[in-house]
Amino acid sequence: MPDRPARILILSGPTREYIDPVRYISNASSGRQGLALAEEALERGFEVEMIQGPVELDVPDSIQVTPVETSSEMHEKALARHAFCDVLIGAAAVSDFRPRETSTKKKKRGQELWSLELEPTTDILRDLAKRKGLRVHVGFALETDQARENGMRKLIEKKLDWIVVNSPEAIGASEGEYELLGAGGSKIHVGRASKRELAARLLDQVTKSLEEVCYGRSGSEEN
Amino acid sequence: MPDRPARILILSGPTREYIDPVRYISNASSGRQGLALAEEALERGFEVEMIQGPVELDVPDSIQVTPVETSSEMHEKALARHAFCDVLIGAAAVSDFRPRETSTKKKKRGQELWSLELEPTTDILRDLAKRKGLRVHVGFALETDQARENGMRKLIEKKLDWIVVNSPEAIGASEGEYELLGAGGSKIHVGRASKRELAARLLDQVTKSLEEVCYGRSGSEEN
Repeated sequence: MPDRPARILILSGPTREYIDPVRYISNASSGRQGLALAEEALERGFEVEMIQGPVELDVPDSIQVTPVETSSEMHEKALARHAFCDVLIGAAAVSDFRPRETSTKKKKRGQELWSLELEPTTDILRDLAKRKGLRVHVGFALETDQARENGMRKLIEKKLDWIVVNSPEAIGASEGEYELLGAGGSKIHVGRASKRELAARLLDQVTKSLEEVCYGRSGSEEN
Repeated sequence: MPDRPARILILSGPTREYIDPVRYISNASSGRQGLALAEEALERGFEVEMIQGPVELDVPDSIQVTPVETSSEMHEKALARHAFCDVLIGAAAVSDFRPRETSTKKKKRGQELWSLELEPTTDILRDLAKRKGLRVHVGFALETDQARENGMRKLIEKKLDWIVVNSPEAIGASEGEYELLGAGGSKIHVGRASKRELAARLLDQVTKSLEEVCYGRSGSEEN
């Protein structure tokens, strides 16, 4: 571990991708998984910082929160704060798509079909992988099919140390069904757990990964 | 007023129109305007019933709440409960559009643009206008431009007794800027007000309209 308290940056909550001034594309993420991770990390002595999409949650005062709304705002703030963290956990349900254009006027209901052009958003964890350095990176994979295979692929593509694989039922719910996949090939079956229990299991692994990174750090300093 | 307590049905909160199992189109409606109306009506002796989109709010036990998620669920429940009310207030931010098809699998982020086909949802107040009978109907018009003109048009098209015209800033916020337009030609400038203050001003007018309807009722009984 570093001499100072390790610093953890958590991306949390949903994002909103605006179609017009009133309507947006979003999901039911409550931000409670991110908050559970933040609270568990705080209790373990981490310094905790969150970049949080629009949710209504009471966050402890000692956690620094940057509120954001859209995926591009979350991306921008994550880029700005990533340099200062030892651990990054991408627990936000960031929209993969956004309207190509946001109308400045509220679109009226007509009789006709309407084709809304969507474009992919930036994959934040994949982008931050380029600046990973000696940080521990963790992601979440919410999969409706071939969960483990898709989780594995994301683990590799995003250069993550750990990925939490879960199913859509977990979103906005108090419990989920989880598996942790590690870059070293570990598969840890967590099974049914509360968000706080999952946070504890995940931070056990993160702490181990952080120690390995630090051995790597001091090792490279000695050479 | 009827001999029994008048019964008020309030449609409240946002709706969610699913694109796939995780993503939906929605808006930032907090359901607080509907709740403020419900609480004010309860205090004035109404029997109060709500059909409420997905929000996290504590509703008093004496208010009967039917939770819904999509606009078509809200439409269905409103049809079922409308027969039992004397006053209908459509305060929900019902989506005007929904994806033509909902994918059963979570769509993956690709590199390409994606054209999402949207279709208009049913206008619930317009549909219930056909069954209005001697009820008092109230709607809300959230307008980004030509607010009063659009409000007027909706008042007539949906056969409303009153329409509240407000601007998108009111959505999810604690205060808004309001005007009430009445079927009889009244224009009541409310101006900046809390949701509860607006509820009080609106229920003053609803009570008057209800009395007029009852005079109409007894009048027609005498003929």
